[in-house]
Amino acid sequence: MEDKKKNSLWEKIAREENVPLETLQERIKKWTVVIPFNKKRKISHPCAIGEGMRVKVNVNLGSSWEADGIKEELQKLSVAIKYGADTVMDLSTGRRLKEIRKAILENSPVPVGTVPIYEVAVKVLQEKGNLSALTPRDILNTIEEQAKEGVDFFTIHCGLNKKTLEVFSRQKRLMDIVSRGGAILLNWMLTKNKENPMYEYFDEILNIAKDYNITLSLGDSLRPGSVLDATDPAQIEELIILGELTQRAHQKGVAVIIEGPGHMTLDQIEANVLAEKKLCQGAPFYVLGPLVTDIALGYDHIAGAIGAAYAAYYGADFLCYVTPAEHLGLPTVEDVKEGTIAFKIAAHAGDLARGKEKAYLRDKQISQARKKRKWDEQFKLSFDPEKARAYYFRNKPKAEDVCSMCSKLCSIKLVDKCLEFLIK
Amino acid sequence: MEDKKKNSLWEKIAREENVPLETLQERIKKWTVVIPFNKKRKISHPCAIGEGMRVKVNVNLGSSWEADGIKEELQKLSVAIKYGADTVMDLSTGRRLKEIRKAILENSPVPVGTVPIYEVAVKVLQEKGNLSALTPRDILNTIEEQAKEGVDFFTIHCGLNKKTLEVFSRQKRLMDIVSRGGAILLNWMLTKNKENPMYEYFDEILNIAKDYNITLSLGDSLRPGSVLDATDPAQIEELIILGELTQRAHQKGVAVIIEGPGHMTLDQIEANVLAEKKLCQGAPFYVLGPLVTDIALGYDHIAGAIGAAYAAYYGADFLCYVTPAEHLGLPTVEDVKEGTIAFKIAAHAGDLARGKEKAYLRDKQISQARKKRKWDEQFKLSFDPEKARAYYFRNKPKAEDVCSMCSKLCSIKLVDKCLEFLIK
Repeated sequence: MEDKKKNSLWEKIAREENVPLETLQERIKKWTVVIPFNKKRKISHPCAIGEGMRVKVNVNLGSSWEADGIKEELQKLSVAIKYGADTVMDLSTGRRLKEIRKAILENSPVPVGTVPIYEVAVKVLQEKGNLSALTPRDILNTIEEQAKEGVDFFTIHCGLNKKTLEVFSRQKRLMDIVSRGGAILLNWMLTKNKENPMYEYFDEILNIAKDYNITLSLGDSLRPGSVLDATDPAQIEELIILGELTQRAHQKGVAVIIEGPGHMTLDQIEANVLAEKKLCQGAPFYVLGPLVTDIALGYDHIAGAIGAAYAAYYGADFLCYVTPAEHLGLPTVEDVKEGTIAFKIAAHAGDLARGKEKAYLRDKQISQARKKRKWDEQFKLSFDPEKARAYYFRNKPKAEDVCSMCSKLCSIKLVDKCLEFLIK
Repeated sequence: MEDKKKNSLWEKIAREENVPLETLQERIKKWTVVIPFNKKRKISHPCAIGEGMRVKVNVNLGSSWEADGIKEELQKLSVAIKYGADTVMDLSTGRRLKEIRKAILENSPVPVGTVPIYEVAVKVLQEKGNLSALTPRDILNTIEEQAKEGVDFFTIHCGLNKKTLEVFSRQKRLMDIVSRGGAILLNWMLTKNKENPMYEYFDEILNIAKDYNITLSLGDSLRPGSVLDATDPAQIEELIILGELTQRAHQKGVAVIIEGPGHMTLDQIEANVLAEKKLCQGAPFYVLGPLVTDIALGYDHIAGAIGAAYAAYYGADFLCYVTPAEHLGLPTVEDVKEGTIAFKIAAHAGDLARGKEKAYLRDKQISQARKKRKWDEQFKLSFDPEKARAYYFRNKPKAEDVCSMCSKLCSIKLVDKCLEFLIK
């Protein structure tokens, strides 16, 4: 990025984040803050992720083999943006994967991430019918191609190597590997008896990332798929490897974020955030969920928001949303909305708990409006004004400025009426 | 309760809770575990609340002035029970309040709680048109009447007295008092310049509770209604008073639980649970939410579930649910369902995080079913099998036992196919 453009971007972000420009610059320099932004891209809403920044939310979009509509994915994108997604990832694995990525890149005002191994896998399945036909060259070519198209950040499953696999092979996991990228690469490594190309050719990947100013999101192939598998030696061994790769990336001048959690009970989240910060030199932590139980089918956005809020409070920087459709199917537009809002609540709860002054402003304003029973102002300050309004008017008392819950016994009105008697 | 009936109940509960009978007995004796169960009642599913027990969820039912249907409240009851409510409270404040309570008491298989001051207030408003006409005698009569009907636990707003009010008057709160019971009593105290009858006649209330084996839930009139009001001197002063009243209750042989939180950021929850346990001699803690932000209008079940899961992890024993309609109106049957499930997830997350062995069993089973792609088994083990099934079949791949999310790239199948190559 040219210096002039970079300076004005950093100034804008420093203002938005309510931190001094020098602080932002320092943190970017020591890689604890990253700004995913491909030099080929023009986006209106880039964002900073990491130390001291507002907690960000990523929304996954993308088709699958069964549902491959461009129109629907663009609707999902627009819902994600409307409800506050800070970034989106296109995880398409359907036949029209390239078209969908192109459309998302064209239409997204926020940074776009992808998982290049998905395109490689879909292509090799379409052309050769089996995954073992894929070559390291296919991977590098696809990464380069997507870099040219303007993708802002890539998930690279580089932590799964022979060493982590050796540790993994000694675990008794309930769910083994649930990362799709991890499973594809495991399959290739085991059937070919070769090293993971994402690990072996990491320097080549770094070169591409460097050329295009792409942030690498180092993927966690061994993330736990059951709360009973969490924080096991395989997961932590992979995190150690990711820490080593983080160092190599920083030496080459490439920004990284580290992917983590999955399924994990509340009591383990603090330690996991701490371990990531220590083992990966303070690189921003990007957590999926974590889902605090395995049994919340149909409600995994809630199980995920619980874990995400906790992770954010303890220092996770970037939350990957989960929808109600998790474990059951591809999310619909409505599911994307539900998931986005649940995770925006979690991120905001994390910001409040970390004492971020700016976050408190909105809570203060909505409470002031609530105290005065200014309903429109409350709706406007909430995550989903239409829903709030519809709920309020569903059963609103006709003559009074109260809601149907307490009605004549509205605590706010009762207190207003008598507070004059209290010498304050 | 006769000794024989009591013994068999305690044995049943010890088995369900997976604790030795002696442990349960000891904890009941030192009042850290309570079993709300009016001696006039016959219920099929009583439960124990407190130290080392599974975290319980309460579901609020009840009409308001605007919506006063018995049929709808019974539908809400049945939905609450279906999705796992451990207790219900009838918070009716409409004209048919008595009929609704009677119907709920007749139909509920779980303990039923009420807030007697609501009935007193509704009656005095109907008969005399203003709250200041209510008398301490009205309150005691209503409590006695409801006790005879079989209510298992009462919320008694006894912590608001002249002393707490004095501390309250020195605070600058955004939301002052948001507890309905608290607001009614504050209004009475200030317009009459008299002490809170719930505090002044606490011994009389204890006598009734003792006679009927009713558990008292000591209400928090000063619970914060904004995250900016949380953990202020007024809230903690009331908790100190509740601790003193707890001691008086125990001396009279009456079991109590303590009500807490409301709106509170994540970072304050641990300290609040600890303070309650210390100040109230380990009495079970019954928390509303806590809602970790003020701005989640329409999604307060999620903001509440986030706080509730934490509270449970740190030792809260009993979670009062919140629905998506909170702050907006009386919940519908669907809202009751959403709120119940969100809080069952929170309670379960708390049980897992506290390491309760029995809680892990269901997560293990669902993960085993997931690993084998046994879909029906997964649905059965989830909170809402109908929803899970509908989501799965919405877009299911025709020929394969996978879901529409990953389809041909199902990580579980990919791993299954190659794991034989890994020498384990």
